[in-house]
Amino acid sequence: MIKAGIIGSTGYAGAELARLLLGHPDTEIIWYGSRSYVGQEYASVYRNMFRIVDEKCLDDNMEELAGQADVVFTATPQGLCASLVNDGILSGTKIVDLSADFRIKNVETYEKWYGIKHKSPEYIQEAVYGLCEINREDVKQARLVANPGCYTTCSILTLYPLVKEGLLDVSSIIIDAKSGTSGAGRSAKTANLFCEVNESIKAYSVAAHRHTPEIEEQLGYAGGQPVLLNFTPHLVPMNRGILITAYAKLLKKVSYDEVKEVYDQYYAKEFFIRVLPKEVYPETRWVEGSNFVDMNFKIDERTGRIIAIGALDNLVKGAAGQAVQNMNLMFGLPENTGLMQIPMFP
Amino acid sequence: MIKAGIIGSTGYAGAELARLLLGHPDTEIIWYGSRSYVGQEYASVYRNMFRIVDEKCLDDNMEELAGQADVVFTATPQGLCASLVNDGILSGTKIVDLSADFRIKNVETYEKWYGIKHKSPEYIQEAVYGLCEINREDVKQARLVANPGCYTTCSILTLYPLVKEGLLDVSSIIIDAKSGTSGAGRSAKTANLFCEVNESIKAYSVAAHRHTPEIEEQLGYAGGQPVLLNFTPHLVPMNRGILITAYAKLLKKVSYDEVKEVYDQYYAKEFFIRVLPKEVYPETRWVEGSNFVDMNFKIDERTGRIIAIGALDNLVKGAAGQAVQNMNLMFGLPENTGLMQIPMFP
Amino acid sequence: MIKAGIIGSTGYAGAELARLLLGHPDTEIIWYGSRSYVGQEYASVYRNMFRIVDEKCLDDNMEELAGQADVVFTATPQGLCASLVNDGILSGTKIVDLSADFRIKNVETYEKWYGIKHKSPEYIQEAVYGLCEINREDVKQARLVANPGCYTTCSILTLYPLVKEGLLDVSSIIIDAKSGTSGAGRSAKTANLFCEVNESIKAYSVAAHRHTPEIEEQLGYAGGQPVLLNFTPHLVPMNRGILITAYAKLLKKVSYDEVKEVYDQYYAKEFFIRVLPKEVYPETRWVEGSNFVDMNFKIDERTGRIIAIGALDNLVKGAAGQAVQNMNLMFGLPENTGLMQIPMFP
Amino acid sequence: MIKAGIIGSTGYAGAELARLLLGHPDTEIIWYGSRSYVGQEYASVYRNMFRIVDEKCLDDNMEELAGQADVVFTATPQGLCASLVNDGILSGTKIVDLSADFRIKNVETYEKWYGIKHKSPEYIQEAVYGLCEINREDVKQARLVANPGCYTTCSILTLYPLVKEGLLDVSSIIIDAKSGTSGAGRSAKTANLFCEVNESIKAYSVAAHRHTPEIEEQLGYAGGQPVLLNFTPHLVPMNRGILITAYAKLLKKVSYDEVKEVYDQYYAKEFFIRVLPKEVYPETRWVEGSNFVDMNFKIDERTGRIIAIGALDNLVKGAAGQAVQNMNLMFGLPENTGLMQIPMFP
Repeated sequence: MIKAGIIGSTGYAGAELARLLLGHPDTEIIWYGSRSYVGQEYASVYRNMFRIVDEKCLDDNMEELAGQADVVFTATPQGLCASLVNDGILSGTKIVDLSADFRIKNVETYEKWYGIKHKSPEYIQEAVYGLCEINREDVKQARLVANPGCYTTCSILTLYPLVKEGLLDVSSIIIDAKSGTSGAGRSAKTANLFCEVNESIKAYSVAAHRHTPEIEEQLGYAGGQPVLLNFTPHLVPMNRGILITAYAKLLKKVSYDEVKEVYDQYYAKEFFIRVLPKEVYPETRWVEGSNFVDMNFKIDERTGRIIAIGALDNLVKGAAGQAVQNMNLMFGLPENTGLMQIPMFP
Repeated sequence: MIKAGIIGSTGYAGAELARLLLGHPDTEIIWYGSRSYVGQEYASVYRNMFRIVDEKCLDDNMEELAGQADVVFTATPQGLCASLVNDGILSGTKIVDLSADFRIKNVETYEKWYGIKHKSPEYIQEAVYGLCEINREDVKQARLVANPGCYTTCSILTLYPLVKEGLLDVSSIIIDAKSGTSGAGRSAKTANLFCEVNESIKAYSVAAHRHTPEIEEQLGYAGGQPVLLNFTPHLVPMNRGILITAYAKLLKKVSYDEVKEVYDQYYAKEFFIRVLPKEVYPETRWVEGSNFVDMNFKIDERTGRIIAIGALDNLVKGAAGQAVQNMNLMFGLPENTGLMQIPMFP
Repeated sequence: MIKAGIIGSTGYAGAELARLLLGHPDTEIIWYGSRSYVGQEYASVYRNMFRIVDEKCLDDNMEELAGQADVVFTATPQGLCASLVNDGILSGTKIVDLSADFRIKNVETYEKWYGIKHKSPEYIQEAVYGLCEINREDVKQARLVANPGCYTTCSILTLYPLVKEGLLDVSSIIIDAKSGTSGAGRSAKTANLFCEVNESIKAYSVAAHRHTPEIEEQLGYAGGQPVLLNFTPHLVPMNRGILITAYAKLLKKVSYDEVKEVYDQYYAKEFFIRVLPKEVYPETRWVEGSNFVDMNFKIDERTGRIIAIGALDNLVKGAAGQAVQNMNLMFGLPENTGLMQIPMFP
Repeated sequence: MIKAGIIGSTGYAGAELARLLLGHPDTEIIWYGSRSYVGQEYASVYRNMFRIVDEKCLDDNMEELAGQADVVFTATPQGLCASLVNDGILSGTKIVDLSADFRIKNVETYEKWYGIKHKSPEYIQEAVYGLCEINREDVKQARLVANPGCYTTCSILTLYPLVKEGLLDVSSIIIDAKSGTSGAGRSAKTANLFCEVNESIKAYSVAAHRHTPEIEEQLGYAGGQPVLLNFTPHLVPMNRGILITAYAKLLKKVSYDEVKEVYDQYYAKEFFIRVLPKEVYPETRWVEGSNFVDMNFKIDERTGRIIAIGALDNLVKGAAGQAVQNMNLMFGLPENTGLMQIPMFP
């Protein structure tokens, strides 16, 4: 059994990690870390865990945890993981960091968009960007994985084949993203109260969202040239789910079949990526609770653009599920172990 | 592998059966029956099943199905199962009927509340009322199980120990029930449109809901005397979940600890029943997607009443999950096989 | 023009008061009081007010306000109004208190259920319980009105004719209430976050909710004898609306027509009370945004009980609308001035 | 009093028209037309109207209606209004058509996108496109007004000043739109059931939505050159509200202040258009129930694009409210008569 610890187990992503790891045949959770609930029963923080989890919340002591755990998941605010990691810890345990600390290779970019100083830039190069479908082989060797963001995963996976194959004018990419409210976390904020979110939709962090440089960097690697794009997230009155609608100019005239073949070339064998039938577009309800990414595209001949649409569950493939997928790779397990949940509908 | 057929697989309960059986280690679905979608791919009716189910919908041919299946689930409108069952079929396969056809032992009561003639009253006595926690031993021997209704399961399980132990004035029972909208089915009706249900709550079938006599009959068996009660269902703007709030006069003064002991005596060893800690009351979010029933109670000394509250997922423990639980018992499997889903939150 | 001040204008009830008073032909808001937002533009706290309200939030200075305002609305936590009121203030202005401070005539009951000491019990007798349909004449003369609670208004108005006419066994009354989430206020609490409330229903304050003694006291006056009852509130995932489902034993056999006549006798001429047609039951969506209370009843001959159901908008008839209705009476205006909003659907 | 008839009064837009006209000081509804509910009480179709509307639904007899009404609103499916209009009718009454029949000046475009033959193309030129803020003077003279679509109103008004002033590369415009579910109408369709819409977001009519050519035509007039753009609507789990997020390349470097001045030049005096403060972006909750359009923009210097965002209530400014605004202009009334509703929140 893989001994797993969760730093930040009482946020929504941490709780989803607990749900997935508890159902995983090869893992055992030995540490429910928390800052706010130390000493309280985990099942009193998440009542769904009543009679399933008996443990109490422990503090976020990475040193002690690293001595006991085979893998540590950090589902914590930006900056914490970077402040905790060191050689001692990395020699004792593997880390899957769900925060943004090691996602962006360019430290200046990180510090500019996140507004904080990076505490351990020396590990940035080593850290593997844990988008399993793209960096599978590197993840297998990693001891430190930067688990991609929710918007990022959905955006990159949906656009990757198109960019990689040079089909797009990469200066023309626009990503309009919509997210359920669990992405905003479990902190008590007036803006996230039921009555404030319900019956409304809004854009936020317009032209300023932190996932932007992450998407740009990764698509830049794929396309072999720097990418600047517009990314606008929106808050939707639902619990889970991310939908991204991406627009870009096609560099040449291509048919549906040609583009479909490009997608198939990259994703036909991917367990978690489902390219939908022609004219069927992703809806977040069809992936809820699962690690799937659904996607499809439409060529608009009138404007010469392609519209590519992707959907995933932000807490699963956008966070905890992908973290488990990374863990599976790091420990030589079949990649979908513990991740076979069928999307739950309705 | 148990070969399972689903008659009515394209309703919400049928689809939940599919989700659960597909994740069950010992079953194989050989028949996706439907009236409305015959010949269409099941995954085009439920897109969450894309790349998971390749089969097309078949018609509701019970004769043919019974020749192939070890167990048939009928998730169909009232009257259909009763019109299909016969000795030939029951000698070829086991049936778990999710409709009301065999739940009520008194034919007159059934015909009065459902307004239809019973087509095969000769099987009513044989049919076992499939509330596993109450009728476990009988279910194990059954070839025809009447799977209880969603409101009924929640109401009976919550009140059973109190009635069985004679704590309640059974003439004083009032059950106020609240249900998510999936209980209303997937038929296209104006009343169930998003804009009609959202941002509203209403009572319906006031003093006339068909689950009333089912609850009365079962609690009557428990209490050893006829029970008449008030049951009022309400429609809540959420997908899943049933909450029942039951009120009754206590026949004598009892303490929290005494009542808690009564509940523990019946349920402490039940895997799917979770009696919550003192002063913690059920919320439907904590059971969503799982087969658990959460419950608790409060004694109001001012009025001499007990308030007992129960919650379950209407599509799981209130329908498909309980059907699988019954199937497990009928085939000698551990009762929770394929039913270990942790409630999904948020 | 009546000069109105609002103490606590940045809570949901205060904001609804602002909305209603701004549309009222005879009032002018001269004071937007707040504790949390002093000095900030009101329209930055409630963006719907952009270009409608230019004022900034002022502090909760009752002394200064009373010198300028003809009427002061206190939409504040329990205890504040009682701590501010005195003879000087009451000689300068009329007060409509939306908190519970002056609702309960029995100080001990107040102090027991609210857990605080009453700061000005000398005004309790003078204060008029502002349920306009019941206490209309007294309200007209009042300088201090205790605006009833949301659950209370719905419960009392629905049951009043039945109790007043002696139809009910008052020892048998059970009120099961369901409320939208705006009733929980705008404070930042984890329990009221979107993801915590959405897709769930729960009971809360079981056998302990503070509106219980208020309902009991008023129904006691109506029935001429003390009333003890069970009241259980539930939180529903919607913004606005209260539905109460009340159950009671009928003291004698009565027909639908007889009971309907009793309701008509009390309410046929009431502008804001709509007794629905036979077999049509209230739904909160049909009163949203309006000052109406919808109600109806069903006699269950099987159990000898009557089920009476009522619905209102908790922020309008359950708070701000009723406060304006009281103000209208106090100032000799037609009772529905400024309150003619047609319920908004969907 | 203006005598108004509504053809199609039992759809959501028709019902909103009823709500607004009933609160309008200068109108009287003389005809509640319907196809599905002829002979039934209007208040039985919309229970919010109980005790407010006593009339029954009449059929959609335009001839008879035109003889009695000063203005007829047609809130009907595409094609109906065009099939009914003729010189006799237009000499007897004014028409505000809420369908698409007279919005598009190019008949071929209409017939291509709507897939039906236009029944009265001879009135297309006469019909005034009823976007009051743009075509105010023409509306005043019109006897036939084509009331713009909901998506269209929001899109055009948000982009109009930018296009009119030549700030945008009009070949680069992308509009990503999000709508509440009332836009889908009140017909019973499985796709619009609560459980299908709730907890999900999806794009639909990708690169094929019928509002596209309407937006293109109007922006083409504004810019003085043909416009082709991408428009993608999304369905959001909420009742009301449209948010559009538009992206376009700026033709030259401009500052926030310069663009703000452009907006002010067009809209500073418009009652119903609110350009929000810097860095504050529209949210549908702040316009709900009102005729306001909120908008704002952000210049992204990194990409050289402007992101313009607009929000309105699809049933008010996107349908019935704008229709009343048009009627006010046609009858010489102050434009905001009966349209002073403050947005209702929460």
